[in-house]
Amino acid sequence: MSDFKKIDAYLEKNFDHSLEELKRYVSQPSISAQNLGLKECALMVKEMLEKRGFKSQIMDTDGAPVVFGERKGKSSRTLLIYNHYDVQPPEPLELWESPPFEPEIRAGKMYGRGVSDDKSHLTSRLFALDAILDAEGDLPCNIKFIVEGEEETSSVHLHDFIRDNLSLLKADACIWEFGGVDHRDMPMQYLGLRGICYVELSVESLGTDVHSGLGGSIFPNAAWRLVWALNSLKGPDERILIPGFYDDVIPPSARDRELMDKLPDVADEYKTRYGVKDFIKGLKGGTDLKIEEVFTPTCTICGLTSGYQGPGSKTVQPARASAKVDFRLVPAQKPEDILKKLRHHFDAQGFSDVQIDYLGGEPAARTDPDDPFIKIVVDTSTEIYETPMEIVPMVGGSGPSYPFVHDLGLPVATMGLGYPDTRAHAPNENIRLDLYLKHAKHMARVVKEFAK
Amino acid sequence: MSDFKKIDAYLEKNFDHSLEELKRYVSQPSISAQNLGLKECALMVKEMLEKRGFKSQIMDTDGAPVVFGERKGKSSRTLLIYNHYDVQPPEPLELWESPPFEPEIRAGKMYGRGVSDDKSHLTSRLFALDAILDAEGDLPCNIKFIVEGEEETSSVHLHDFIRDNLSLLKADACIWEFGGVDHRDMPMQYLGLRGICYVELSVESLGTDVHSGLGGSIFPNAAWRLVWALNSLKGPDERILIPGFYDDVIPPSARDRELMDKLPDVADEYKTRYGVKDFIKGLKGGTDLKIEEVFTPTCTICGLTSGYQGPGSKTVQPARASAKVDFRLVPAQKPEDILKKLRHHFDAQGFSDVQIDYLGGEPAARTDPDDPFIKIVVDTSTEIYETPMEIVPMVGGSGPSYPFVHDLGLPVATMGLGYPDTRAHAPNENIRLDLYLKHAKHMARVVKEFAK
Repeated sequence: MSDFKKIDAYLEKNFDHSLEELKRYVSQPSISAQNLGLKECALMVKEMLEKRGFKSQIMDTDGAPVVFGERKGKSSRTLLIYNHYDVQPPEPLELWESPPFEPEIRAGKMYGRGVSDDKSHLTSRLFALDAILDAEGDLPCNIKFIVEGEEETSSVHLHDFIRDNLSLLKADACIWEFGGVDHRDMPMQYLGLRGICYVELSVESLGTDVHSGLGGSIFPNAAWRLVWALNSLKGPDERILIPGFYDDVIPPSARDRELMDKLPDVADEYKTRYGVKDFIKGLKGGTDLKIEEVFTPTCTICGLTSGYQGPGSKTVQPARASAKVDFRLVPAQKPEDILKKLRHHFDAQGFSDVQIDYLGGEPAARTDPDDPFIKIVVDTSTEIYETPMEIVPMVGGSGPSYPFVHDLGLPVATMGLGYPDTRAHAPNENIRLDLYLKHAKHMARVVKEFAK
Repeated sequence: MSDFKKIDAYLEKNFDHSLEELKRYVSQPSISAQNLGLKECALMVKEMLEKRGFKSQIMDTDGAPVVFGERKGKSSRTLLIYNHYDVQPPEPLELWESPPFEPEIRAGKMYGRGVSDDKSHLTSRLFALDAILDAEGDLPCNIKFIVEGEEETSSVHLHDFIRDNLSLLKADACIWEFGGVDHRDMPMQYLGLRGICYVELSVESLGTDVHSGLGGSIFPNAAWRLVWALNSLKGPDERILIPGFYDDVIPPSARDRELMDKLPDVADEYKTRYGVKDFIKGLKGGTDLKIEEVFTPTCTICGLTSGYQGPGSKTVQPARASAKVDFRLVPAQKPEDILKKLRHHFDAQGFSDVQIDYLGGEPAARTDPDDPFIKIVVDTSTEIYETPMEIVPMVGGSGPSYPFVHDLGLPVATMGLGYPDTRAHAPNENIRLDLYLKHAKHMARVVKEFAK
């Protein structure tokens, strides 16, 4: 692959320059859950694309705007690159070692909210295109960028946006927003994402908080109502109790089990990294743990709020209580269906006082491991990572891959610079700078191979 | 009672002056749950007592200091007056119509945190003594004040303080920190307080918060563990499930039922005032509701905290979750015993991962309705309130009356200026100024009658 000499030399020489662009990008807060800095960040992305000669536009949705950019290339093939400019909320702030929106490089890593998920993915990809343009003066194929601003809040409006812009987004293949290496530094090809159905459950039992000495014996307590309603969803055996919840679940195939079996055991790594003493459901490790991690749907409490939460004691009976709950869905569960079953379940269990607010969702989606585009991404990685890419048929996280796979009909490949201690969604989110450079090099190769 | 002409005239003439003192007192934040402003407030109380010629001292405890003041009077009888200078946390701040620590008078009411519970009780009592001293130059009996700073956090150190200072606190009768009128403006004589056992329950299931797409299927979730542990304490039928919890409960006597029966029905008032749609346990009103309200022990969730609680969605599996829970106790339950049974219950139910932090407690205590001191307080009230005082054998709230009743051996009478919309522990806590004046007048009469 001697034709990458010039490209690789460019990437090594201009590395710091790209990191500066990433720093500027991370410094711009863009928290979709809090509607903070989104327009400013979208404008920044548009300018970043235009700098590379992309015809770009900021397109309105009913939520955060989508940035779309397109640049023609030599071949007629079109690669669609999906990224998002929004990030998770940075809380709890006190656990960050440096401020989340003041990116800092320490010991070969850059720290900041969104630096991994997924701002570095966008800048390193642009960096790869810079290198190709520098070496060849033009792109080898058409490239389209779709950069949305609601990925961290379940991409509520992206599905409609894609359905409304099928011809604009028409392509032959898609690169997903994230990817990375596992704990052995092995690059991973993730070919499926679970779906999600995110809800806020809330109860209002009184007009006002009341002294607990008065209300405790005779008034309904919102926090208790919420606890009992949650308890009706799942017991300590982890089986989800909503009738019909598992009806549409497609269990993993023999091929899936075979691919999962090849993947390394993660038990010890998880225990060390996340401070897990024992896995749930009696899981010990091995293929069982790996299968359970990604091929089962979940019901996770992401947050609980009620009454007094400060230091010491306050004797109050809270009027209101709420929980954030996410259901991770597997093929072929549908969020709308789960939502309906959840409402029905609460009503049947005597919890019609529990209000359900749907905060977003998406069905699961998968790409065929035998697709030729997947082969390109897998094969080009070996030179960069000195180890073959490993194929993972399904991962536990979610993303809006459904409309890419099912509406645009694209194979979706993952590649990127995540790594196990990247702390996406958590304090001290970070990237490894060595992986940043590798991703840019890999990206340049994928673009050129795909263009042929 | 013509001998009160001069006293009453003084109280009416100097009313605004006393309200100014109350305003200064309320302006000093003194939040025991947050250890905020306690020393400053104790010093303020000491100065207020010294202004009236009380020999006063600030006495250390293992927590907030106690202010003790004593002034001799003409007779050998000694009246002990109990108050507290601490207040509840003011949160949620956004629901206050004026800042909680900037007391404001609007339409015949004064608003501020602690204005009712119980700062106005102290200043109006001092105001009554001012009037007696002005009229007679001396107090008719010995008066002792004990003003503590941890009442709102279950008076953790008061019991020991009283046991360590039995001779200092020696008296013949005690006036309790609060009292007031009901919704008909009828003054109430509350003769019993429930006990309390306040705990914080917490679970830590992981070393760090984890992306819910990763942890949801295989890692233990602290919020779920907490929900299940709480659910094991009480189900929707409201029966507390801790083995032995009800063992020591002394049910209300026939006399209690008779006294409760005489009290007015509260059902409609509660529904209107607190926005209750239906009472729990199928209660509709009448004596059943009144008995249930105060003679049954409770298990109340006062607060819930876990994971993400901001706007929108965050897909995180929380590492930590906690709940504030208060148990209201009836005679003869003991907080230490309940604590032991709670730990045992959690362990037996598989929740040894739930940590219990004891934030304070006190057993219930009652005073005999036939005590002569109670008769003085009841009889002197008629002239002021134009209606006889009503005797309530037990109330739902708690307070550290146990050491007063059982260690000091005192009859404890309640009187004060609370009223149903006083919003103690809630936003917009307030007092009615007309009741402030009435309480001062009543107090002057009690002191003089008691001295005989």
